[in-house]
Formats: sequence, C-alpha cells, structure tokens
Amino acid sequence: MALARHIGQTVASSSFIRKMFETGIRLKQEYGAEKVCDFSLGNPSLPPPAAFSEALIRVASQSFPGKHAYMPNAGYADVRAAIAGWVGKAQGIDLPSSHVVMSCGAGGGLNVIFKALLNPGDEVVASLPCFMEYRFYAENHGGVLKTVPCKPGFDLDLDAIAKALTPRTALVILNSPNNPSGTIYPEATLQGLAGVLADATRKHGRTIYLVADEPYRAITYGQPVPGLLALYPHSIVVSSFSKELSIPGERLGWIAVNPAAEDAAALIDGAVVCTRILGYVNAPALMQKAAAACLGVTADMAAYRRKRDLLCPALKRIGYDLVEPAGTFYAFPKAPGGDDLAFVEALQKQLVLVVPGRGFGMEGYFRIAYCVDDDIITRSLAGFEAAFRECT
Amino acid sequence: MALARHIGQTVASSSFIRKMFETGIRLKQEYGAEKVCDFSLGNPSLPPPAAFSEALIRVASQSFPGKHAYMPNAGYADVRAAIAGWVGKAQGIDLPSSHVVMSCGAGGGLNVIFKALLNPGDEVVASLPCFMEYRFYAENHGGVLKTVPCKPGFDLDLDAIAKALTPRTALVILNSPNNPSGTIYPEATLQGLAGVLADATRKHGRTIYLVADEPYRAITYGQPVPGLLALYPHSIVVSSFSKELSIPGERLGWIAVNPAAEDAAALIDGAVVCTRILGYVNAPALMQKAAAACLGVTADMAAYRRKRDLLCPALKRIGYDLVEPAGTFYAFPKAPGGDDLAFVEALQKQLVLVVPGRGFGMEGYFRIAYCVDDDIITRSLAGFEAAFRECT
Repeated sequence: MALARHIGQTVASSSFIRKMFETGIRLKQEYGAEKVCDFSLGNPSLPPPAAFSEALIRVASQSFPGKHAYMPNAGYADVRAAIAGWVGKAQGIDLPSSHVVMSCGAGGGLNVIFKALLNPGDEVVASLPCFMEYRFYAENHGGVLKTVPCKPGFDLDLDAIAKALTPRTALVILNSPNNPSGTIYPEATLQGLAGVLADATRKHGRTIYLVADEPYRAITYGQPVPGLLALYPHSIVVSSFSKELSIPGERLGWIAVNPAAEDAAALIDGAVVCTRILGYVNAPALMQKAAAACLGVTADMAAYRRKRDLLCPALKRIGYDLVEPAGTFYAFPKAPGGDDLAFVEALQKQLVLVVPGRGFGMEGYFRIAYCVDDDIITRSLAGFEAAFRECT
Repeated sequence: MALARHIGQTVASSSFIRKMFETGIRLKQEYGAEKVCDFSLGNPSLPPPAAFSEALIRVASQSFPGKHAYMPNAGYADVRAAIAGWVGKAQGIDLPSSHVVMSCGAGGGLNVIFKALLNPGDEVVASLPCFMEYRFYAENHGGVLKTVPCKPGFDLDLDAIAKALTPRTALVILNSPNNPSGTIYPEATLQGLAGVLADATRKHGRTIYLVADEPYRAITYGQPVPGLLALYPHSIVVSSFSKELSIPGERLGWIAVNPAAEDAAALIDGAVVCTRILGYVNAPALMQKAAAACLGVTADMAAYRRKRDLLCPALKRIGYDLVEPAGTFYAFPKAPGGDDLAFVEALQKQLVLVVPGRGFGMEGYFRIAYCVDDDIITRSLAGFEAAFRECT
C-alpha cells in the first residue's frame, strides 16, 4: 500500500460520513433532489450581499499594479489595515495592522496557528461538542486533540477544562457561536475561562494560548458575542468571510494576534512563515480586495432567524429535546431513542439528511444545518415527526 | 518561548533571505524604487491574458447555483473534466476527470501529495538546483528531503539519483522547466530516470512515485517538455495557473494522478482528504471557473523570450558563465569569484537584487528572475558589469 498509513486510516475513519453522503446522493438520484431535505452541510443558502458582488465585479474590472500577483505572505497591506480596524473595534482592543495575517479561510488560519504553536505531543484542548476537523488540524502538526465534556445546555465546564490542562497544553480552542450547538458562551463564562487559563499558565510555567475560531460571529439572534481579545491577553482570533458573506468556496479568512500575547511578534513571524511553507503562500488576492471593500456588510442574517424560527419551535412541538441556538445556522437536538446513528438512518428513510452527533464528539445528538431554503424546512417536518415516532 | 521550536528555527534559517529582502526595501527607500533593479522574485511581470480577465469578469457577473459556495473538496466536476482533457492531451495519455484534484496553487498541491504519500522518516529525492521549499513541504508531513547533485549544465545525474534511492524513498520530485536553472530535462534523460525508478522499485519492493512540479510548462523557448505521465506509470503531475495566466496571488492549481499508478484510486481519495484536513478545503471557487474557461490561453510568452534575449547574451559578453535557460523566466549563472553571498552583496551595491544559489541548494551560483520590465534589464547591465569586475 503506497498511501501514508495515517491517511489511509483517515480515509477509512471518515467512512461513516462518506457512507452517509453516498446514501444522500443515492436518495437524490432515486427520488429526485427536490424530494430530499438535505440538512447535512454548512453551506450557506443565502446569496452573498449585493455590496460584495458589486465590489467583486468592480475589483475584477479594475487595473492596478500587482493585480492577481504575489503580495507579502501576510496579505495586502491595505487589506490588513482595514481588517485590523474592523476586528479591533468588534473585539474592543487596539489592533495594529501588523497583527493581522490573511489566511486561506479559517481552516487555513487554524492550521497556520497550530503549526506555529505546537511542538510534538503538545495538546490542544477543545470543549465538546466541536468541529472535529480540529483533531486533524492538531495531528497535522504533531499535536493531539483533547476533548472535554460541556455542561448540560452546552456551556463550558470550567472545572473539566481546568483538569484537562497540563504542561503539554499549548492552546485551548474555542468556537463561539458554536458549531454544532449554536451556543454563544456568555461573558461570565469566558471571564472564568480566562482565570482558569491564567492559573494553569502560572502553575505549569507555560503560557496557554486561547484560539477563538469565530466564523459565525455575525450569525446571532440577539445575544452578544463577547470579544475574547479584550478578555485574555494570550489570545488569537481566527475567522473567515465564508459565512458572513456566503463565500465559503473562496477560502478567505484572517488571523488576529493579540498585541498583549506573549511572544506576539514571534508568533506573527511564525504565522507568516507557516502560511508560506504550508503551501497556502497567501490568501487569494482578488477576494482580499473585494472583501475588504465591504467589511461589516453581511448576507441577510434575518433570513437565518426566520429559518430557525420555522424549524426549532416545530421540532419542540413534535417532542424533540432541543436547546434553541443563539447563533450559527445549526441546531443540535438529542437523538430520539438515544442512538444517533440509528436515528439518522430513520430520518434518511424519510428523505431527511442530518449528521450524527458523534461527528462532533457527542453520541446521542444530531446536527441540523438549517442554512437551506425555507420550503425544505417546511417539507421536512413530516419526516422529522415520523422518525421521532419511529424511534421513541 | 511559545513558538514551536522547528518554526522558530525556520524563521531564523530564512534570515539571510529576509535580510536580503530588507536590504532591498531599504535600497528602494533610499534611492527610489525606480533606481533599484529587483530580480529577486518570481512574480510574473506580464498582465494576465485578456481572455482570462474577460472570463473572470464574466463569471463574476453571472448568477449560478452554488456560486462562491463549497463544492466537493476535489473541485467543480466541470472544471476537473475540462482540466483532465487538457492535461491528458499535453501529457499524451487518457486522463479521466476523477484523476484531477483542484488545489490551492502548486504549493498546496505538493503539500497534499506529500501528506498523502509520506510516512514518518520517508525520503523525498530532488535533483539540485531546486526550489528549496520542497524541504519544508517534506518536513511538514514527517518526511525528509534528500538532494542529489546534477551533471554539469544542470541535466539529471541518473547514477547519483540511483544511489540516493533507498527503501525509505517514497517519491522523487522533478521540476521541469526548472526553477532556478531554466533547464528542460530531455526525453532521453526522463526515460533513463523511469528505468532507474523501475529498478529501485523492484530492488526495494516499494513503489517509488515520480511527482512532476510543472508550473513553468508553458514558458519555453522551443525545446519541448516531455509528458511524464506517458513515460512512467507511478507518476503525478502538480501544476498551477500562476505562471501561465500570471495569477500567482490567486492560488489556483491542480493535481493529476496517472491512471496507471499503483493504488491510484486510494491516492486520489487520500489527496481529497488531505485537501480537506490541511485546511485548504477546496481550490478557490470563482478562479476555478475563470481558469477553466480559458485553458490553453497564456500570458504573452514571447515577451519572456525577448527578456531572456535582452539579458543572457549581454551577461555572456560581460563574461558570466551561464547556461542559457530553455524555459522559465530564470537564469542561474555562476557567481563571479565563486562566493554567491559576497557576489550578491556586490550586486546590491549596484542596486541590482538577485538570490544567492545557496537558496536553491547550490552555492557559487545566483538566480536572476527576469520576469521584469525590459527597461529594468537594460538598466541593470552596467551594474552586472561593475559587480563582475569587482569580484573577478
């Protein structure tokens, strides 16, 4: 076998997700795509805002020196400056443009930061439920993902996090608003987390960084998303324009390093070098210019609220045990009957596709990505009801 | 120190290049950018061809389902099909579209293939001189770069390559036309290489893959670039649109896996998984569509020939020892006096910036990236002459 062993294992261990997708494709072929209600992918259903589409056409039509060319690995200077001002304001700190590094989406930005921070065997701590790609991102760079259970209702369990921190802990990763639960961690929890990290940093004599993965910051339904950079010095925010501009396929994101972080300058140098040597080289050029031209503009987020309000109360009426999401376009109910794989299969028989909770480290739940057309939500409710009856 | 040890070392070991760039910036500030002749970066000077710019504006202006959205990690199906047809024709084989995986530039594609193929400690063999980022790409995924000297005049030394192959060799990487020498390896050499690899594969009981890094395939001055996929079964071509469309900042490339390669299907699955877990996720969406709409169109390559012909004969007249490049926009002369660092500094005093050969694994040479305006070449010749006199 020529394939690297760990990659062969990764392909094999992704097989249940793959099987699920293949089932979805088969169902769509068999019954017609319009008959299948596909809630399995976090692919925003909303078109990009008009301001972005106009900015893109404008930039694409302009002539300027260096258009489409290499720029410094950290990104265009004017784009970094614009993002620094915008992110600093959202986070409640003064952020110099030198502290922003443009990335190939949040996935690229997280890989860059993990590579810059992890020595072999170092641990990355994440609270469940979480986006399990974090495990691969850690392992890509010699690290290990250590997951920690949450409190009922998905808030962070600070005691559990404190117990998970060791001299091997390089960083804690936090995703708020959270994929898959839709939870926004409240400011009091985050202040508590900052205290836990400061204590462990003192105790172990090693600075623990806090990495905030924030691509859903703009998708909220009233509850504020606290600015982490103002709450903990050794912090880094990684985000992307994928969700707020509905352009996930364009792979545009950014990294912001707190000026108060230990070794901030070395960390920025490291992030720039890692951007280069991981083969990203730089974030896509034209998209940098287009996104920077419409910072703060978002896709029609009221539409996600409408979709949430179409879906969640209806699921509760059926009997689903569900914490209403405060942000994101995901809901994460308990799987009726308790077995997430069995329940996902029961839903498939109703031509409704979702992801089992074990894909996010929590068996017994399932994720609904409701970033779909309203009528798919409406049509799916009979299937959600039938599968509920079948499994309870 | 919070930064990962190996990244700290990488930042430090890049310091001579960094110092060079900083000197360049300082010289431009001090004397004015128009006074400095900067041949240090392979950033194409030519604008993208009009057909590409038109395709980009057209695609950016169109509405279509899934525009800017996630697509399968391997890329859009129609784009993969178009590239498979085009690459298959250039390489002289039948290439199914399932054997093409779109990538974030050639740098991203090489990282994906290295991650898919390398087990810890596995060796990647490259002939000098070469693009030394290969070392990082191998180390990113637990591998080791093993470099092999070339023959005088930069052709492959097949005996040296044969001796370098061991049971740990996972792949040989080949870059033709070559950065930095401009060499195109002739078909007879490549047939010899295929024989060497087949022998070693038999001897060690392990298939050795041949990875062709071909971003300069379209930049040639008459000599053909043989199709590697037709010459060796276990072969993979990685390339990008950076050079032929003059869009290096957009990070668009592709991987083509030979249908005759051992474990080809597993390797494609692995490449797709690695595209995902390395955080690339997919090649930038809109650029896939724009590039696929003008396959075979290139920037004005006759201009690079004109630049080569402005530069190389003039350098020879001065006395430089130089193999005329058969392709690329690089020339790789011997450093007068023999010490590449000292010579590069002498050239800097003339406000001419180049890269020392040690940056490509060969001390005693230096690289000129002549993808610059014609008048920069003309203006530089006095400086090349003065530095030559100073060092010989």
